[in-house]
Amino acid sequence: MDPKKASIFIQSQIPELTELTMYYMNLVTVARLQRNPTVKSEIQMRKFEANIPAGFLCYPISQASDITAFKATIVPVGEDQKPMLEQTREIVRKFNEIYAPVLVEPDILLSSNKSCLRLPGTDGKAKTSKSLGNCIYLSDTEEEVAKKVKSMYTDPTHIKVSDPGHIEGNTVFTYLDAFAKDEDFKKYLPEYENLDELKAHYSRGGLGDVKIKKFLNAVLEEELSPIRERRKEYEKDPAFIVEMLKKGTEKAKETAAKTLDEVKKAMRIDYFAGDLF
Amino acid sequence: MDPKKASIFIQSQIPELTELTMYYMNLVTVARLQRNPTVKSEIQMRKFEANIPAGFLCYPISQASDITAFKATIVPVGEDQKPMLEQTREIVRKFNEIYAPVLVEPDILLSSNKSCLRLPGTDGKAKTSKSLGNCIYLSDTEEEVAKKVKSMYTDPTHIKVSDPGHIEGNTVFTYLDAFAKDEDFKKYLPEYENLDELKAHYSRGGLGDVKIKKFLNAVLEEELSPIRERRKEYEKDPAFIVEMLKKGTEKAKETAAKTLDEVKKAMRIDYFAGDLF
Repeated sequence: MDPKKASIFIQSQIPELTELTMYYMNLVTVARLQRNPTVKSEIQMRKFEANIPAGFLCYPISQASDITAFKATIVPVGEDQKPMLEQTREIVRKFNEIYAPVLVEPDILLSSNKSCLRLPGTDGKAKTSKSLGNCIYLSDTEEEVAKKVKSMYTDPTHIKVSDPGHIEGNTVFTYLDAFAKDEDFKKYLPEYENLDELKAHYSRGGLGDVKIKKFLNAVLEEELSPIRERRKEYEKDPAFIVEMLKKGTEKAKETAAKTLDEVKKAMRIDYFAGDLF
Repeated sequence: MDPKKASIFIQSQIPELTELTMYYMNLVTVARLQRNPTVKSEIQMRKFEANIPAGFLCYPISQASDITAFKATIVPVGEDQKPMLEQTREIVRKFNEIYAPVLVEPDILLSSNKSCLRLPGTDGKAKTSKSLGNCIYLSDTEEEVAKKVKSMYTDPTHIKVSDPGHIEGNTVFTYLDAFAKDEDFKKYLPEYENLDELKAHYSRGGLGDVKIKKFLNAVLEEELSPIRERRKEYEKDPAFIVEMLKKGTEKAKETAAKTLDEVKKAMRIDYFAGDLF
């Protein structure tokens, strides 16, 4: 994201969003929230069961505020965020029907790029977490990335280089699926035209894990090194970061306040806005 | 309430309260809210069942904000509001334990006056509602009050004046319990010293419903006519009412904002308050 193009802001510093959430909370039933697949799986994962905090249950409503406050028309998110967007659309329809057509029903924008899918951990597990140490971070150094790629989960049945290897469930290939471009082959593996050829070789045997990992490392560095460079530049000037966040937050707050005004007017609770009698 | 002594404000015009609610929502589980007796009985009464709106389930949390925002030490409410106050105290204890001792644990003030108990409807039913037309309002005219008292539910077995009557479940006596003062007897029923004597007469027979209803009407008028007078005075000047509400709301907002600042500081989410780096 380029702060010159996008307003980057701190969500918790925009109280208008909590007000919208409170109003939307009257439009959504508890049963509906409990059916939300994301909430359901998070409850399971975090072992919340009946002890789920109310704030957690209502999180999809808070997300609806984050989207509708800015009258977003398109929300670029991953497949797994579909239920959240459906909840938002329901709230918008219900609000507009009950009060007035103030809110905008957003559409989801799913990327065709596979890098927008949820990547598995470097250990091949679906769950990634800091404590498991199985994620590659944008803030990782070159050395850290190299180390994580080196120990990445591949195909446990692919023991000798000459053995045929499996592509399915092989984390290196999942990451290559997401990030490898044809230019990367020209630059780092000119003996292959594209990923299909590399996969074919690996499948029939004769291609070692070291080689595909070295290639993945190069591919990731193509992605990460410019990000790392920009990060370094920004890190030199923390005051600029704060200023950027402040400005972004102010701008976002202005837009959210405008929407909130319209919402309150539609709900006829803008008591002090006009003449009360 | 005297607007010169109390700040009367419109709760929905103080967004700080919604922010506090959002933070407190992370301190209360859904199971805990579902155990709240007031919420439970309201769910039953309104036939919400699983379709209870999230806002309704979380209402006790919103009440906790209304109390804690002003660091209330004493909350004068009816017996039926005890669970709500207990929920507030739990939130205060949890917040202070996790973050910092910012919030004040309020005490309930139960009145010894029976008029603070929940009165039944004029039809003797526990549920009072506008649509049932079984409530006496502070805004009722003298004629409306008289009409409602006249048709009030008494003792269906008390047919002739000479019949012995029941006090228990007799709405006229429930209302007299709440409102009749010894002075009222001196003024309107000097043949009785107090309510106990009146009850005794009614129980043994020989006292008609018309007489006790006439007395109740006089007792209620003693309460209501000064209120009605003051209401009429205020009604002459709607601009004063708006100004009073505006001033009260501004004052309340100031106090709530101060508490919210302390809350955010304790939670370390006052990002722009100090130096971020």
